[in-house]
Amino acid sequence: MTDMRNGSVTLLEVAPRDGFQSIDKLIPTAEKIAIVEDLLSAGVSRMELGSFVSPKAIPQMADMKEIAAHFKGREGCRMSVLVPNGKGASLALEAGYPDLVFVVSVSETHNRANVNQSVAQSLDQLRAIVAEAGDGGSRLRVDLATSFDCPFTGDVPLDAVRKVAGEALVIAPAAEFALCDTTGRADPMTVAHRFEAVMREAPDETVWAFHGHDTFGMGVANALYAYSAGVTIIEGAAAGLGGCPFAPGATGNTATEDLQFAFEQGGITTGIDRAKLLDTADRIAALPGGKTASHLRIVPRGRAV
Amino acid sequence: MTDMRNGSVTLLEVAPRDGFQSIDKLIPTAEKIAIVEDLLSAGVSRMELGSFVSPKAIPQMADMKEIAAHFKGREGCRMSVLVPNGKGASLALEAGYPDLVFVVSVSETHNRANVNQSVAQSLDQLRAIVAEAGDGGSRLRVDLATSFDCPFTGDVPLDAVRKVAGEALVIAPAAEFALCDTTGRADPMTVAHRFEAVMREAPDETVWAFHGHDTFGMGVANALYAYSAGVTIIEGAAAGLGGCPFAPGATGNTATEDLQFAFEQGGITTGIDRAKLLDTADRIAALPGGKTASHLRIVPRGRAV
Repeated sequence: MTDMRNGSVTLLEVAPRDGFQSIDKLIPTAEKIAIVEDLLSAGVSRMELGSFVSPKAIPQMADMKEIAAHFKGREGCRMSVLVPNGKGASLALEAGYPDLVFVVSVSETHNRANVNQSVAQSLDQLRAIVAEAGDGGSRLRVDLATSFDCPFTGDVPLDAVRKVAGEALVIAPAAEFALCDTTGRADPMTVAHRFEAVMREAPDETVWAFHGHDTFGMGVANALYAYSAGVTIIEGAAAGLGGCPFAPGATGNTATEDLQFAFEQGGITTGIDRAKLLDTADRIAALPGGKTASHLRIVPRGRAV
Repeated sequence: MTDMRNGSVTLLEVAPRDGFQSIDKLIPTAEKIAIVEDLLSAGVSRMELGSFVSPKAIPQMADMKEIAAHFKGREGCRMSVLVPNGKGASLALEAGYPDLVFVVSVSETHNRANVNQSVAQSLDQLRAIVAEAGDGGSRLRVDLATSFDCPFTGDVPLDAVRKVAGEALVIAPAAEFALCDTTGRADPMTVAHRFEAVMREAPDETVWAFHGHDTFGMGVANALYAYSAGVTIIEGAAAGLGGCPFAPGATGNTATEDLQFAFEQGGITTGIDRAKLLDTADRIAALPGGKTASHLRIVPRGRAV
């Protein structure tokens, strides 16, 4: 294990996207912008800023254009936006955001619940987005949701993950790919094993990310095992915010501050200032409808970190 | 990481000792016995049954003799008892329990708070216990408390751990040794690194254990990293019960059911039946003054494991 020390990892912050959408009460645009500014000031170098989706589907994202305009061209952090289809991709590109995120579920049942399409139809959307973005998807990230467990059908077979990953790789050969533990029920060794399996079948240069939730309390362990398998981008949300509206039984994303602690204490740099991140997490937790699911913050009493 | 699969690990159950003592309200002896029977029936193969300590120090252990008599000679599970000194060792041996556990803290401050002795005085006690038990402590386990963090002084230097471990190894060369994360503030890579460091300086045949708490939510990850460093005995408490009365700011032991899930899902056998263990954990959580800190049990809604 000591060979893991003295490296670095990128913690990709998803609170402004996966996190905010889990809060029912609309967050004022100015407050969203202030939180993103705080995250940038803490040293976050990659972030999902939001989604170019219909406000009917996700009302919390109705001010996406305004937020995008505010941060357009900001240097020091690679900000991506989630797009559900080619139309969303056009909107994002027009807004000056070439870094796109597209989600397709490995589980047919979850994909239908999430986007009301078959997996094959979602892959068609991916094809349209790559055509829109150009360059084989070189600035695109493909999130493979339910890569471990489906909230409706249970265990997802590895072969299903390999199949969807393989098809997506053909469509977007230059993209980055994430295996997502949408329900937070994966276990660390299975996470490592699945990454090793899909990485073996992908080009060496493909970049991999892990998106995890902390339902069973394995979020940090899953992230470390993903890293040990060669994954260099780990997603988290400050304050452990988040939760897929179409994944009943799942809790929030693994808290970025818990991830920061686990990696930095182990000698793996994240570039993120823990004290500033914790302050921002407290601000998020204090939002109406907000709360904290961060282990570093729910310590009952005693010394601060 | 895949080389970790297809092995086995021993989950040592400490709910009847570290767990019960954390409950203020006295648990009826018959209920304690019934819970231990349930744990045995779930397949627990090693357990800390309790402590031969003064009931003035820990009132919950006042019925130790009665419980010890009930389980004396029981086969299928190696049951040990904690003893604070040579007198406790004599009582345990008379009661038919040759498997003893002795605790010494690496942190002077914590050792004084815990047993009102200096570390050197505690090592003298260890010497007396080894003399009492004989055979170089071949059936003794030495718990090195605060091997990572002290609730009073903060970070514990690795050199202090090496020093106390080295001295204890000279006194009890045949004993089993545990590094204990008494406050639950250790991180996974430091756990692996510290085990590797002390193991390098100990005889190859020395057996090592890890005792962890889950304060920062790293309990499962810490256990997996200890295992990956070569530790074959991992301590947990059903329902995540426990907490040192002299470690303010610490939460319970890592829940045995969370550990069972993480190891078994990764293909590492524990010999423990998860459904029966979860039933027992529910019984413990339902005790007056009990609760659950198990991640598998605090899932807000959705499918059962």
